[in-house]
Amino acid sequence: MFEAAELGKKLSKSEYAAALPELRESLLAAHFAIKDAGVPVLIIVSGVDGAGKAELVHRLNEWLDPRGVDTHASWQSSDEEEERPHNWRFWRRLPAKGRIGIFFGSWYTPPILDRVYDRTKKRHFDVEMDRIVFLEQMLAQDGVLIIKLWFHLPKKVHKINLKEMAKNPRKHWRVMSADWDLLKNFDEFVTVSERAIRLTDSAEAPWHVVEASDRRYRELTSGRIIVESIQKCLAAPKMEGAQRVGIKKKSERDERTILDAVDLSQEMSGEKYDLLLKQYQGELSRLVWKANQKKVSSVIVFEGWDAAGKGSAIRRVTGAMDPQFYRVIPIAAPTDEERAHHYMWRFWRHLPRAGKLVIFDRSWYGRVLVERVEGFARTDEWQRAFVEINDFEEQLIRHGVVLSKFWLHIGKDEQLRRFKLRQEDVTKQHKITEEDWRNRRKWDAYKLAVNEMVERTSTAQTPWTLVAGNDKRTARIQILRTICENLEAKL
Amino acid sequence: MFEAAELGKKLSKSEYAAALPELRESLLAAHFAIKDAGVPVLIIVSGVDGAGKAELVHRLNEWLDPRGVDTHASWQSSDEEEERPHNWRFWRRLPAKGRIGIFFGSWYTPPILDRVYDRTKKRHFDVEMDRIVFLEQMLAQDGVLIIKLWFHLPKKVHKINLKEMAKNPRKHWRVMSADWDLLKNFDEFVTVSERAIRLTDSAEAPWHVVEASDRRYRELTSGRIIVESIQKCLAAPKMEGAQRVGIKKKSERDERTILDAVDLSQEMSGEKYDLLLKQYQGELSRLVWKANQKKVSSVIVFEGWDAAGKGSAIRRVTGAMDPQFYRVIPIAAPTDEERAHHYMWRFWRHLPRAGKLVIFDRSWYGRVLVERVEGFARTDEWQRAFVEINDFEEQLIRHGVVLSKFWLHIGKDEQLRRFKLRQEDVTKQHKITEEDWRNRRKWDAYKLAVNEMVERTSTAQTPWTLVAGNDKRTARIQILRTICENLEAKL
Repeated sequence: MFEAAELGKKLSKSEYAAALPELRESLLAAHFAIKDAGVPVLIIVSGVDGAGKAELVHRLNEWLDPRGVDTHASWQSSDEEEERPHNWRFWRRLPAKGRIGIFFGSWYTPPILDRVYDRTKKRHFDVEMDRIVFLEQMLAQDGVLIIKLWFHLPKKVHKINLKEMAKNPRKHWRVMSADWDLLKNFDEFVTVSERAIRLTDSAEAPWHVVEASDRRYRELTSGRIIVESIQKCLAAPKMEGAQRVGIKKKSERDERTILDAVDLSQEMSGEKYDLLLKQYQGELSRLVWKANQKKVSSVIVFEGWDAAGKGSAIRRVTGAMDPQFYRVIPIAAPTDEERAHHYMWRFWRHLPRAGKLVIFDRSWYGRVLVERVEGFARTDEWQRAFVEINDFEEQLIRHGVVLSKFWLHIGKDEQLRRFKLRQEDVTKQHKITEEDWRNRRKWDAYKLAVNEMVERTSTAQTPWTLVAGNDKRTARIQILRTICENLEAKL
Repeated sequence: MFEAAELGKKLSKSEYAAALPELRESLLAAHFAIKDAGVPVLIIVSGVDGAGKAELVHRLNEWLDPRGVDTHASWQSSDEEEERPHNWRFWRRLPAKGRIGIFFGSWYTPPILDRVYDRTKKRHFDVEMDRIVFLEQMLAQDGVLIIKLWFHLPKKVHKINLKEMAKNPRKHWRVMSADWDLLKNFDEFVTVSERAIRLTDSAEAPWHVVEASDRRYRELTSGRIIVESIQKCLAAPKMEGAQRVGIKKKSERDERTILDAVDLSQEMSGEKYDLLLKQYQGELSRLVWKANQKKVSSVIVFEGWDAAGKGSAIRRVTGAMDPQFYRVIPIAAPTDEERAHHYMWRFWRHLPRAGKLVIFDRSWYGRVLVERVEGFARTDEWQRAFVEINDFEEQLIRHGVVLSKFWLHIGKDEQLRRFKLRQEDVTKQHKITEEDWRNRRKWDAYKLAVNEMVERTSTAQTPWTLVAGNDKRTARIQILRTICENLEAKL
């Protein structure tokens, strides 16, 4: 694959000088165009160390409008990063709409080096590459333009460069023992890199291999690739016009769904409840403390009908915990920083550190519930959300997070009864708005959305717990017991 | 001082039940009122451990609308926090406008405990308290409502509580050896706490000492304090109408200022420049690498006239560094998350980790430059900014950050020449807008603002470097040399 990048391509000083003005002009024009269009651009600069990647980063900061560029070159992970699922470190650095993020080093570097030095198996490497493809595809579908550059050097040139750098008094400190190690393993590095490129070259995020022996050639070529990628992206047809209909007519028939199977007739006496509440809160209190000692973190998701009792159930859960162990994240309208990123960004930013617990009061499932039903998300957007959500939750599980997901179910009559009660109680009036009544009128559409959500996102590792919510006591005990069981299984 | 909180105040179950509905109603009303008014509220819950602080936090989350409350109870510092000035951990958690932040544990806990266990001197403790007063005053002046609760317990009651908790199988794990230690040092704890309260009790952020022996009494009392504080705050006259005139007429006379003393006639030959550029870039490259090894971080501030050459000077600086060591933060219009916080918040969030370098392309000085001249900030706001900025920079210095501040100065004629050149160059046209021409017409007002800025914020530890910018070569070398010297002095 790299043969085409070992042709000895170069540019003379005068050729470079002649071509530069036009490139810079079109690069700037492209930059302003993506700013206006609100397209986030991610430029990944990868390849052989010492092939001029850092110089390109400097050059791009010079050629582009630096106020619109965020360069991320430092990937030493902090403990805040290590205590969260791996991709958290990338999510927090993704470019916002209209901005350019340059990743110097990226999700490619660690798996490639681990494989070169045989710290991982080939099979594991391939799985990692699959995950990268998924992430890139997900971002691309959301409108992120991903431009991936690979700087290639023939081994011979790399060796000469390294030796010259080591002799240069201004640069010798930049040559680390890791560089000599890589030179020794150069053939293996080429083999693994080729495989990485092959497995992750996609229509959404294609690779551009650049012959890097000559500075002028590689920089001009990179600049041109960026200009062309942006132009192509902006010329592509927009998804804006796509269908925004949440629920298809045919599925609006009131079919029997998973929700109908929930037995809402269960009841629990006050005495039994008091006893069990005390028992499970004590149990939970102990488990949460143990989880903190063992650095096991938890994510708990609460979804449910309006007035199903989410708030009061959450308080029964948090009531058993020391405030330093948990945080409750209520999900409301996104801020503008959140709106400027992929839909999942605002959930990633709240993931717990090791040993902590985060409770989401409403969650990423809004994408396939309210956003679907109300048409806030396009059909293609909420449809692919199922896969995105399953992938996200799998990343949590893989990191060792204990995940519990609750759908608080109540009957339609029970909801009406509670709405009316709330309107009469001054301390609860604020909980019932015109929006709640509007949602209620769309009960059937929501019901089908919930049904599909549960069907498609309840996996063996990330099961939904459907809570029988007509009786609040039954519901709270079911929730506390489930959280205890999930924690117990992990500790 | 605590005698008044050892009176044995308590409430019977029926008194509590009778008073609760009204309290909850007014608490909710107060919560919605501050939301509407966009007031950030900070509730600090402090006092003796085991006095029911955690229970109050739970209670407040129940009584208030939990969607508008952020509770911060975990203060284990991460390495991302430890690598930055101490207050960074607080700034990142400050409530946004219209939200309530509950700090369970706060800036009071560490200095008090350090003093109790004699890990710090009394003098040092007093200085810490002064700093807290400054921070609270600064937040209060910005419109943050600070409510500070201190839960007090007589020693006898504390001892009984602790022993009972240790016997309770559901709670015994919560009793740590630290709790027994504190019991042994209870008298000292009371003495130090009294001093802390006395030194930090201010009109802007008064303390409320609450007798905490009885759960019902302390919770109801706390709730009432919060309601009253919010009502008082909302009833207070607004600052909105205050003067927004940036520069007073009398100071618009073109006086001779510090800027006039900058010798703009300096020039440097191309040969000399090439030589010195290479020398200082090499030097900087080495120093930045060394600073990284030694975990010394740097902050570099660039301010200057439009077209003074900030961008190209920054590139000469970054050109000498490996991209993983630095980040450039261009300061443009704030995001809505930024706008919802104190003016300094958005600068705190970008402070570098240990061994890294952050370059601000425009900075917090915007407050006393553009915001002053254009009237974006009220007179009282930009006037107190001088003190706030000096305090902020002192915190950087105290943390060991190397701070360099540059004002790039050019003559008014030279600016005009450059504006015209830019308009003719397609790759530079975007750098010159109607705003630049507008600013230019206010040259004299800006000049006086710059002059006052330098006078009031150039301290022995945080001096401004006024750069003679008419000759770009001279300017760049002066900047590179200054940064090298500042780093060298620290390494």
